[in-house]
Amino acid sequence: MHGEIIAIGDELVSGKVLNTTASFAANKLFYAGCQVTRITSIGDDPDDIEECLLTAIKRSKYVIITGGLGPTTDDITNEVTAKALGRPLVLNEMILEKIRRAKHRFVNPVFLREKLAWLPEGAEVLNPEGRAAGYLLVHQDTPLFFLPGVPGELEDHMVQRVIPRLSKFISKKIKIRQQTFKVFGLSETEINALFEKLESSRDGLSIGYYPNFPEVNVTATVKGLNPEKVAEIFHMACNTIKQLLDKHVVAVNEETLEEIVGRLLLEKGGVLSLAESCTGGLVSQRVTSIPGSSGWFERGVITYSNKSKEDLLGVSRETLSLYGAVSSPTAVEMADGVKRLAGTGYSLAITGIAGPSGGTAQKPVGTVHIALSTPERTVAEQFRFAGTRHMIQILAAETALDLLRLYLSYGKRSQGTASALLSGT
Amino acid sequence: MHGEIIAIGDELVSGKVLNTTASFAANKLFYAGCQVTRITSIGDDPDDIEECLLTAIKRSKYVIITGGLGPTTDDITNEVTAKALGRPLVLNEMILEKIRRAKHRFVNPVFLREKLAWLPEGAEVLNPEGRAAGYLLVHQDTPLFFLPGVPGELEDHMVQRVIPRLSKFISKKIKIRQQTFKVFGLSETEINALFEKLESSRDGLSIGYYPNFPEVNVTATVKGLNPEKVAEIFHMACNTIKQLLDKHVVAVNEETLEEIVGRLLLEKGGVLSLAESCTGGLVSQRVTSIPGSSGWFERGVITYSNKSKEDLLGVSRETLSLYGAVSSPTAVEMADGVKRLAGTGYSLAITGIAGPSGGTAQKPVGTVHIALSTPERTVAEQFRFAGTRHMIQILAAETALDLLRLYLSYGKRSQGTASALLSGT
Repeated sequence: MHGEIIAIGDELVSGKVLNTTASFAANKLFYAGCQVTRITSIGDDPDDIEECLLTAIKRSKYVIITGGLGPTTDDITNEVTAKALGRPLVLNEMILEKIRRAKHRFVNPVFLREKLAWLPEGAEVLNPEGRAAGYLLVHQDTPLFFLPGVPGELEDHMVQRVIPRLSKFISKKIKIRQQTFKVFGLSETEINALFEKLESSRDGLSIGYYPNFPEVNVTATVKGLNPEKVAEIFHMACNTIKQLLDKHVVAVNEETLEEIVGRLLLEKGGVLSLAESCTGGLVSQRVTSIPGSSGWFERGVITYSNKSKEDLLGVSRETLSLYGAVSSPTAVEMADGVKRLAGTGYSLAITGIAGPSGGTAQKPVGTVHIALSTPERTVAEQFRFAGTRHMIQILAAETALDLLRLYLSYGKRSQGTASALLSGT
Repeated sequence: MHGEIIAIGDELVSGKVLNTTASFAANKLFYAGCQVTRITSIGDDPDDIEECLLTAIKRSKYVIITGGLGPTTDDITNEVTAKALGRPLVLNEMILEKIRRAKHRFVNPVFLREKLAWLPEGAEVLNPEGRAAGYLLVHQDTPLFFLPGVPGELEDHMVQRVIPRLSKFISKKIKIRQQTFKVFGLSETEINALFEKLESSRDGLSIGYYPNFPEVNVTATVKGLNPEKVAEIFHMACNTIKQLLDKHVVAVNEETLEEIVGRLLLEKGGVLSLAESCTGGLVSQRVTSIPGSSGWFERGVITYSNKSKEDLLGVSRETLSLYGAVSSPTAVEMADGVKRLAGTGYSLAITGIAGPSGGTAQKPVGTVHIALSTPERTVAEQFRFAGTRHMIQILAAETALDLLRLYLSYGKRSQGTASALLSGT
């Protein structure tokens, strides 16, 4: 069941915006057994859109069309489709009603938004409850899915509406199982080397590597017509992969490292506080992005200046002048300080040089000290990260959270793991 | 001079890899006046490649073909091109020589790499000194550029070889000017309505709208053959747009809101401190992502618990019990507290309910109070944001930074602007 994607928008062909939505859709379709063989990006040009649409219908078993469904004047997908397929625009009363009743944050001109209610004849709205009017049009037995180009809306439509409906058009049902392992502390080539035997030994199994900085996502995919066989190979593969990657798996599938840390803290009844310097709130922001994090996160401080390290955390002037702000003793006093003030069982402290300036021969850009304080004790380690300011901040935040994850999961057995893996020191 | 790009590779149509190289190339070509009207991604399939190539030659003034030029068995671009265009593969002695002498990091089988020396008849190697064999083939007066798909190599080729050569094929040189306005506080449709007259009134001007949550990017593009005319229309359009969007423009082109805020603070010699609750460090993280932010940012605190609001910021227990943690009085005390402790001239405080739980009838999810403290005084406003937890956090952070930007740019004249625009209250 091969199909294609047409992505419409001047911003795509001028290279202003990356076509991430088509890539997302293609990936979902791939795993649903409905592989895409062509992705075409075209501008907001009626002739191009018409030609592209008609050719695609002739050539492919299904077509996904994204973009150009909005209310502004450069959104012309519906008009062009109506003309190309000889299906006049028909007023969809339900959408019109929704538009008129909608309470918007902004004072929106209703006449512009009413354009969204005119769809080509035969259009079936995919998500009548939602805001964006993606729709399905079956033309000459070919399903055409018209989807909004905005990433979040397209993704919702793909997962919840398109894949389930497209499955009905598939004659042979291919069974696909997939699991994603989020790996931190091993490079793609290192993982690849670990998997050498695994890859060649199992039928129907394919391993994908997608760097998603600072993690590498490893996906195990098993495809086949026999569901039992697929399940068997899938479980064996996942078990083997888990053993091979071991402590480096920070999360699985949609879960994130910060969610895992939160769950582990809740299990132990532990509460976390944070003292950040060079990461500037990145760890706090990741932690508080999790719903319910107030149950296991008490406070964070971003002590960017030396003064704030003294005032807020009680880091001693002696330590700062003797070892400097970027040092393990300072990190330890930061972690102890915030833990004491917040009255929590756990704390993390991060101090380092994210750059681009501020580095010295002794403490080059990328030098980061991370302290983890637990009910037992406080330990600090030095790391040396490479990359841009942004990359160094991300690596430092991930490493800090991962140190806590390793401690909570493996206790003392985790000792030295992170430093051995992550540091060049 | 319109052209198109064909990108070859199974990894593109399966959505495993984003087509960043095509986007890069399209952007370079756009600004060189050689606009791309179509980008097609296809798999490593000979029939698809042949069909795509022949159609593109008929349709476009030039074609860029990327990918499939490597030494492995799935790299078939040269063979397919030779067959499609009736140009037999010819051994390029120079490349062969280079391959045989080359020292490689890996022990590469020479017979595999020798494949790289066989190019379609008439191919002119673009970079004889380089490693990757990108080449130009002029077929029926249409320049076809075959480029390696690896990002770094393609980018070198585009900038140093393709653009200069393509310029020779352009008879009429189109001049292009573009500016992006980052807008916050107006929806796409509202902007579109503001621009109604502008769009229809000027020749060669096009306006694009690209939502980039929580902002909308508005681009003004002017194209034409006469550089003076283009410059004139461009400047008039930009001035008009600036007037129409007024205070809603938070930044222009590559700049960000947080960079603007930093620049304005530096100009005034002001330093900022932050007290965040429901945004959990998001504002601090945005601020500290800017190199040199230590020059205008002193500290941040993330006071997630009531206790931390009392301890760290001196918010009074009376205020907390009388008005609650999510209230303007609490926000004001948070802002005053962090400003006093940090000894800064400016502070922002944010307290609210990001959800999904924690809302009440009186204070539903999305209720956020933001206080801005300046050397003159401290004011707080209530906002009501819609969306997921993540969206509410992003809207709150953006609004807080924007309040500060408005104050620093317009002083008292900014009063009420943000609240009128952003809040449903």
